[in-house]
Amino acid sequence: MNSSPRVVFCATHTQAEPWLEVLRAQLPGFTVDAWHADHAADPAAEHTADYAVVWAPPQAFIDQVATSERLKAVFNLGAGVDALVSLRWPSLKGAPPVPLIRLDDAGMGTQMAEYVCQAVTRHVRELDVVEAQSRQGQWAFRKPRLRADFPVGVLGLGVLGQRVALALRSFEYTVHGWSRSAKQIEGVTTYGGMDALEPMLSKCRILVNLLPLTDQTQDLLNKQRLSKLMPGGYVINVARGAHVVDEDLVALLDSGHLAGAMLDVFRQEPLPADHAFWKHPKIVVTPHTSSRTLRNESLAQIAQKILRLEHGADVRSLPGLVDRSRGY
Amino acid sequence: MNSSPRVVFCATHTQAEPWLEVLRAQLPGFTVDAWHADHAADPAAEHTADYAVVWAPPQAFIDQVATSERLKAVFNLGAGVDALVSLRWPSLKGAPPVPLIRLDDAGMGTQMAEYVCQAVTRHVRELDVVEAQSRQGQWAFRKPRLRADFPVGVLGLGVLGQRVALALRSFEYTVHGWSRSAKQIEGVTTYGGMDALEPMLSKCRILVNLLPLTDQTQDLLNKQRLSKLMPGGYVINVARGAHVVDEDLVALLDSGHLAGAMLDVFRQEPLPADHAFWKHPKIVVTPHTSSRTLRNESLAQIAQKILRLEHGADVRSLPGLVDRSRGY
Repeated sequence: MNSSPRVVFCATHTQAEPWLEVLRAQLPGFTVDAWHADHAADPAAEHTADYAVVWAPPQAFIDQVATSERLKAVFNLGAGVDALVSLRWPSLKGAPPVPLIRLDDAGMGTQMAEYVCQAVTRHVRELDVVEAQSRQGQWAFRKPRLRADFPVGVLGLGVLGQRVALALRSFEYTVHGWSRSAKQIEGVTTYGGMDALEPMLSKCRILVNLLPLTDQTQDLLNKQRLSKLMPGGYVINVARGAHVVDEDLVALLDSGHLAGAMLDVFRQEPLPADHAFWKHPKIVVTPHTSSRTLRNESLAQIAQKILRLEHGADVRSLPGLVDRSRGY
Repeated sequence: MNSSPRVVFCATHTQAEPWLEVLRAQLPGFTVDAWHADHAADPAAEHTADYAVVWAPPQAFIDQVATSERLKAVFNLGAGVDALVSLRWPSLKGAPPVPLIRLDDAGMGTQMAEYVCQAVTRHVRELDVVEAQSRQGQWAFRKPRLRADFPVGVLGLGVLGQRVALALRSFEYTVHGWSRSAKQIEGVTTYGGMDALEPMLSKCRILVNLLPLTDQTQDLLNKQRLSKLMPGGYVINVARGAHVVDEDLVALLDSGHLAGAMLDVFRQEPLPADHAFWKHPKIVVTPHTSSRTLRNESLAQIAQKILRLEHGADVRSLPGLVDRSRGY
């Protein structure tokens, strides 16, 4: 029997091998394998592990690997853990379920900040319009629009939300930030709690959604709340599709209250071919690409945390530990 | 005769009145008028001024207003003074020509930084491709490209170049900066002088041009120098069209050595309808919009400088004083 610590990797829709290679290099002396349903059905195979590294694992994986007391932590290869939390997690002998740890930036903050800044820049400065006219061979000189007329609201002030808020500040936008409990961010007017949400929205013309998806935030951006944005509002959704009520967003774009939207996340991904977002002239669709999980950065962070745990660190000391009661 | 200081405003292609209003509000007690060729021909009119505020003035304006010893300074409503310097300036009684003062940021740095950052982000992350595919209803998931593979070079490290270099650094790009004489910028590898230009270019995959246009920098970006960029190079020109040899740029795009270009400035503006840039599939044309002169910010800065001179300040103490011998 192999006594070295074992890490099991389970990610749907990706080739495991390049990830295993990096993990093995980062964790010398560890056994690092991929989980496959076929392998899992083999009674002779090893079905327990000390650590799991996952992206959108199936319930069958949890049922097999998380029912062993050997499992010490599950690392998610992304910042959003809504899908992971919503699986059925076994509780062993009344003990709490295994700790879940999400990515803590690992190169995602910078990607998110630059994606959002380019979306804001292009909207405020009408570069999308200018480029479309250029493609027609038109020199389309336009009256400058002032950034003071485009205050930006950021929903969600975790690692990514704060990074985005500060990047927008560095380009001299007025930034309002909202989170469940108010935070302090230099140069940003912050608001906390549901009662403060609509007053905050009413001060913003551009809205950037970076909330975690929970029971409280699902469908948060409905007609009532989106209508609170200043006229000519613009919505950038880089969190989860289920935060936005699709029909309400389209209705407000069609009524003219909203000027446009740049959407990177959807209730169903890939966005179904017949979805209204695809052809809407005021909507830009991107394929969940605002912040990609970077293999080396992510696995280096996860390997570091595994080594800290192996050296006796308390799991509660790890950045990115998920609070299952709040859902993120 | 009116003894109050007089400011004359001369800007082609713009309505003078809104600018005069702001200047008058900023300079109470001053006489502030616009210069018109008709008015200039009227022998009864006042043809001298203490200060001139100009954008692309005709030679006739210089011939009339700058031949008076009364003129203390000419303020340019932009950062680039190549057109202004190349006019014929009278020298009075052997004294040096009147001081020229260019805009010193005045809101241009932030605009330039966000324009360049969005251009870099979109190229590195292929958002242009992704959006084009989205317009066709395609969910075009692409392999992430790493920013480490896209070192950026910034040519020209004045107020705007430094602002751009630092903004790119804040998004974790590797940044190389080149200027006539080497400068120190935190986090940026800097190079100075012509001998260092090609070695610097060979380290860059994206090139941002922010040089002043002078005899030394005209046609600087020719085939020899642009071929020094890493394969798959990308050129962002936000300085002056005459820095780039148009045919050489097109040839390197067509040969495949360069992957694309985003061009905001041209040898002739508006870019002529039959120019090859318009329809080139690897070129994005924008209509000299990367950094617009903002009326309030610019005139507030100029009025401040005028008031400092009126209170006895030495013109050499003003930021933005042009060195005619170097041309910027």
